[in-house]
Amino acid sequence: MTAPRVLVLDDDPLPRLDRLAGRADVLHSNAKTLASRLPEADVLLVWDFTSDAVRHAWPGPGARPRWVHTASAGVDRLLFPELLASDTVITNARGVFDRPIAEYVAGLVLALAKDFRGTWAAQQEHRWVHRETAKVYGSNAVIVGSGPIGRRIGAMLQSLGVAVELVGRRARERDPAFGRVHSADSLPELLPETDWVVCAAPLTPQTTGMFDAETLALLRPSARLINIGRGAHVVTDDLADALRAGRLGGAALDVLPDEPLPPDSPLWDVPNLLISPHMSGDTFGWRDDLADQFLDNFDRWHADRPLFSVVDKQLGYVPSEDT
Amino acid sequence: MTAPRVLVLDDDPLPRLDRLAGRADVLHSNAKTLASRLPEADVLLVWDFTSDAVRHAWPGPGARPRWVHTASAGVDRLLFPELLASDTVITNARGVFDRPIAEYVAGLVLALAKDFRGTWAAQQEHRWVHRETAKVYGSNAVIVGSGPIGRRIGAMLQSLGVAVELVGRRARERDPAFGRVHSADSLPELLPETDWVVCAAPLTPQTTGMFDAETLALLRPSARLINIGRGAHVVTDDLADALRAGRLGGAALDVLPDEPLPPDSPLWDVPNLLISPHMSGDTFGWRDDLADQFLDNFDRWHADRPLFSVVDKQLGYVPSEDT
Repeated sequence: MTAPRVLVLDDDPLPRLDRLAGRADVLHSNAKTLASRLPEADVLLVWDFTSDAVRHAWPGPGARPRWVHTASAGVDRLLFPELLASDTVITNARGVFDRPIAEYVAGLVLALAKDFRGTWAAQQEHRWVHRETAKVYGSNAVIVGSGPIGRRIGAMLQSLGVAVELVGRRARERDPAFGRVHSADSLPELLPETDWVVCAAPLTPQTTGMFDAETLALLRPSARLINIGRGAHVVTDDLADALRAGRLGGAALDVLPDEPLPPDSPLWDVPNLLISPHMSGDTFGWRDDLADQFLDNFDRWHADRPLFSVVDKQLGYVPSEDT
Repeated sequence: MTAPRVLVLDDDPLPRLDRLAGRADVLHSNAKTLASRLPEADVLLVWDFTSDAVRHAWPGPGARPRWVHTASAGVDRLLFPELLASDTVITNARGVFDRPIAEYVAGLVLALAKDFRGTWAAQQEHRWVHRETAKVYGSNAVIVGSGPIGRRIGAMLQSLGVAVELVGRRARERDPAFGRVHSADSLPELLPETDWVVCAAPLTPQTTGMFDAETLALLRPSARLINIGRGAHVVTDDLADALRAGRLGGAALDVLPDEPLPPDSPLWDVPNLLISPHMSGDTFGWRDDLADQFLDNFDRWHADRPLFSVVDKQLGYVPSEDT
């Protein structure tokens, strides 16, 4: 029996895959060499999950790996027709980012409520500018995305005294943590009442561009939008217009349609817009956590046991009982 | 029966005391006129709690109010010998600031862990600088101050997954929320192990200057100090030295020995030091909350019922079962 071949679409630093020693041959590729190496691979580890190389390389000639694992929660870069139509199984990094991202969002909610950026800007100018700021307790939030990341965000905001409404693919009564889960149909009723909107949805045709001028117009002028999903969830020109016109209280984008955001983008200077470089889930050790998660799944694959975190290729994410 | 006279040491904006109409005569004073008006007053409301006017005016000639209420949690400005030796009762704003300050501290912990200031500084320069940041979950904190503010901070950090050690005036086993409350004697064992130190203590002779070079030297180079107590808890020169030398990971001071901090203070530019203008508890509506709290206590005083939030003048704060 030949050892299975695990092809890694590399990124720096490389994953620690010592546990594969003697059990698999590890091959490496980059965006240029991926197409030529794909036919040799039994498994593809998309370590550089910011690359579109798989989408470009896959439709070419030759055999294809039966399993693709992406070291990311979002799988949108893999949802192209040839891979969707194939028998190849896709798995993702479900779980690794939940709590780090929830902490990041809770931190943004508190930082926005307390205007930390205004305080630190005044500090740079040696100015002591006392202001009153908002309570977070007693405010309310709409979280779009009822997967593990959205749920963890919701639980953390609840622990801060925020009333949370969760929006998922389909409405359900009697959710154990949130009482009720709404469908996107309810957004016209929910958004005008909320202080915080958090986007933690998978990027699918249904959610692409969902935060456009029409949706943003539903929000109060004091409301704030936080996006840790995918950049394409938000129509950034519409968001910038709303912020410049004072029709929205503020926003924080950890993800952008175009990453990294170019230095000459006007978004950097939009008032009341916080931009962070797609780092909400990336805590110290995250790469090792991602590698370990792949290796755990490899153990299952190698033993012919069912993989965990298998993406529903029609839905575009890993479904679960409560999403 | 003459109406009681309530003297207000004013601050702008004035308290809303409509509820006193027909029940008390409201007199006003400022730092200059306080001494001459004190003998006329039955009750003194220290609305401008940042003023040392009471300390200066009180030792003069004439009668003195029997009750002094300060619209602040800290009563350190009232702990001078002549007031301590008198029969006058002191009450404070216990409770109003607990949750707002806890939110502020939780926000600082998250903002420091995720390096929001670094991200927003990069945003100003249009730079996309991805970094890994710390998890808050699984970290640990020492909170100095076991009154309602320290306890609320502790509960909120616990809800974020932080292991909290509470330090109070005296050690106790079997605290319902924190398992164990330590005395300051335990700081040499606690501080070398902690990620976060939060000062929420009352300012007393025992706590003044407690965060000096010697105490700061006990902390890990990665640890962070947050002070929302009183400026004089921290020896700021020692803190600045530790931060400049990289012996401490960071600090956030919402209170300073000298407020407002003068524009030429070198503290503004100390690396990894966040300065905010004594605003951690001051949420929208806080002044009305403070006025209402005084009025509730006035109702008791007027009905000859026991006041709440009575300061133990020997301890220097309002004692309670669990502090």
